[in-house]
Amino acid sequence: MVKDDCIFCKLANGVIPTNSIYEDDEFNVILDASPATKGHALILPKEHYADMYEIPDEKAASVIKLAKKMMKHMTDVLGCDGFNIVQNNGEPAGQTVFHFHMHLIPRYDVEGNEKIFGWTHADADSEKQKELCEKLKIK
Amino acid sequence: MVKDDCIFCKLANGVIPTNSIYEDDEFNVILDASPATKGHALILPKEHYADMYEIPDEKAASVIKLAKKMMKHMTDVLGCDGFNIVQNNGEPAGQTVFHFHMHLIPRYDVEGNEKIFGWTHADADSEKQKELCEKLKIK
Repeated sequence: MVKDDCIFCKLANGVIPTNSIYEDDEFNVILDASPATKGHALILPKEHYADMYEIPDEKAASVIKLAKKMMKHMTDVLGCDGFNIVQNNGEPAGQTVFHFHMHLIPRYDVEGNEKIFGWTHADADSEKQKELCEKLKIK
Repeated sequence: MVKDDCIFCKLANGVIPTNSIYEDDEFNVILDASPATKGHALILPKEHYADMYEIPDEKAASVIKLAKKMMKHMTDVLGCDGFNIVQNNGEPAGQTVFHFHMHLIPRYDVEGNEKIFGWTHADADSEKQKELCEKLKIK
């Protein structure tokens, strides 16, 4: 299914032209218009799924295989020194367009690189972590 | 294969005890010892692969299916409001242990949440983006 008012549906299906670096029957890989680094790209499924909660398992499996293929290709072409694969779900997680996408972010071993991407650390009291583990454990 | 001097091989295979929330024949899912947020977990394959460049396609497919399953379960238990799935490759990308792992980071709609995780933006001159697109395009 394609959603009429979804910008990523339009980009993925070529309704709006964009910088596409790979396309097949299921996916379009495009350059991010607000790149974190040179070459930052997005894997977009052509069908509309809001996020990882909605995408079928087999489609998610195809996404990650494509991510691996693109990452290798992009590393060869760009000569980058590392790669982040990031997939955000929900506004509090930084998702801004509610059509599933996976970020492919090439990283370069240059000055200031460490400022581009990372996270802060929360409390990790060992007793609290054990309690949390019990709560989350799938037996 | 398991690598003798790899801390994540030891954690994944139960040689060193840890806060495991899920285990099967192929994977162990453990709480991150330096969590970005409450419930931050890592998917570790029991076999040793340094990163996404090394992991076989079918293993990567199993990882993402497990990520989706865990994300749903953790959202139910934690009542979080979003989720980041992050997989880092290489030191310039923030990888600190060189055994493939995927971060599962629950996000909460609370004050200060936006400071936890994100990236800065690089130059996105439209002519340069077009050139880059031509360079990267797989025809």
